[in-house]
Amino acid sequence: MLKNPIGQKRWAIAEGYIPKTSHGPAPEMTSHETACLLNTSDQAAQVQITVYFSDRDPVGPYRITVPANRTMHLRFNDLIDPEPIPKGTDYASVIEADVPIVVQHTRLDSRQNANALITTIAYATSE
Amino acid sequence: MLKNPIGQKRWAIAEGYIPKTSHGPAPEMTSHETACLLNTSDQAAQVQITVYFSDRDPVGPYRITVPANRTMHLRFNDLIDPEPIPKGTDYASVIEADVPIVVQHTRLDSRQNANALITTIAYATSE
Amino acid sequence: MLKNPIGQKRWAIAEGYIPKTSHGPAPEMTSHETACLLNTSDQAAQVQITVYFSDRDPVGPYRITVPANRTMHLRFNDLIDPEPIPKGTDYASVIEADVPIVVQHTRLDSRQNANALITTIAYATSE
Amino acid sequence: MLKNPIGQKRWAIAEGYIPKTSHGPAPEMTSHETACLLNTSDQAAQVQITVYFSDRDPVGPYRITVPANRTMHLRFNDLIDPEPIPKGTDYASVIEADVPIVVQHTRLDSRQNANALITTIAYATSE
Repeated sequence: MLKNPIGQKRWAIAEGYIPKTSHGPAPEMTSHETACLLNTSDQAAQVQITVYFSDRDPVGPYRITVPANRTMHLRFNDLIDPEPIPKGTDYASVIEADVPIVVQHTRLDSRQNANALITTIAYATSE
Repeated sequence: MLKNPIGQKRWAIAEGYIPKTSHGPAPEMTSHETACLLNTSDQAAQVQITVYFSDRDPVGPYRITVPANRTMHLRFNDLIDPEPIPKGTDYASVIEADVPIVVQHTRLDSRQNANALITTIAYATSE
Repeated sequence: MLKNPIGQKRWAIAEGYIPKTSHGPAPEMTSHETACLLNTSDQAAQVQITVYFSDRDPVGPYRITVPANRTMHLRFNDLIDPEPIPKGTDYASVIEADVPIVVQHTRLDSRQNANALITTIAYATSE
Repeated sequence: MLKNPIGQKRWAIAEGYIPKTSHGPAPEMTSHETACLLNTSDQAAQVQITVYFSDRDPVGPYRITVPANRTMHLRFNDLIDPEPIPKGTDYASVIEADVPIVVQHTRLDSRQNANALITTIAYATSE
């Protein structure tokens, strides 16, 4: 649809933390962390996610396919292969794709009755 | 007013989600998602928005005009042509203009009594 | 203190909105919008802010000095010359300095008992 | 793990403010401000943080080591050498490393029963 796909092939999110507890009906109000991936190219994006921790070696890659001209709002909670991401643990992530994509980071924190939301564009690089 | 208009002609927002429900007086406290557009140039900006989904083809372009030296805080809720954006659905957007603009993304989520607000600069590219 | 001052001379914040109402003790909990300015250079930064609206011509410049090696968390609520920024009104801003600075945008929205906070890095350009 | 480490060597966060009060169990719900640091390189990152204030000279450097292939979510509350950062005070920070890193800024504000969360990518420069 677009002349040139928009984005970069390498992204990083230095913040990561899936709260242990939630309030409200699942799955909408379950505490979660999301990487919103947008693929505006005409081919499927093969995406690899590597997860970094504070006290052990990185885990990954987690492999995801974002179809052509689609967005995928990927919950880190749902990643299970090679292993689930533990809750209540600091982590960070690097997201690499074989076509340009755009990545935005969002967390819903419903540990309290009044949920909190955060979002930011991820860090992109062409290197 | 400014020597050179500030911004880029292509922007993307990978996160998009209009909550289904709201608390508080409309329209101020209605759950909504906004693209804040700033046109610092001396000519009107012709803006085209393409909306991406997870499970169907993109929709658009939605056509908007931002007058010279004006800002427009555009609610995605208000887009109706070619079709309204469904609530409670993951989406993403690409925003293209014929002059440089600046784009910032904001959501007011008033599903709960205590509303949540998020914002981020959108992803810009010169390509 | 730093070899090279960090930042850019031109910044834009497309989102702007000072809520009309507040809960909690002033001034800490007063609804407000802030431009956090950081000047890491060895000379004072002469800063000019231009404010854009949706339905009338831009207002400004507002003139601010950020001393060398200082940060200033400037509340838009406090700008009065050439005129106060009206509450409950959409606006945007362009921030220009004569030395490189860094700009971050924050809002405290205390319209409800549970306040909401948002922040984002502003859009920077070297042009 | 990655071919090229991702990030930059100089970052700035113009917003900084550690709320004076908190609600909820410590340390999880203590009001805090965090710099999330990600080091994807194969060598430890020697990080220096300089803290800027509105009314006095900068303090620092605070020296931190982020091991190779690790993330560190550093609470500004925990910095004590050369001196603790006062609560309820506006500040800003510059973060410099000897290898590329990625920096994201987060604050948990639990002054009220309903906590507020904010995050943004920091400002990066290659200069």
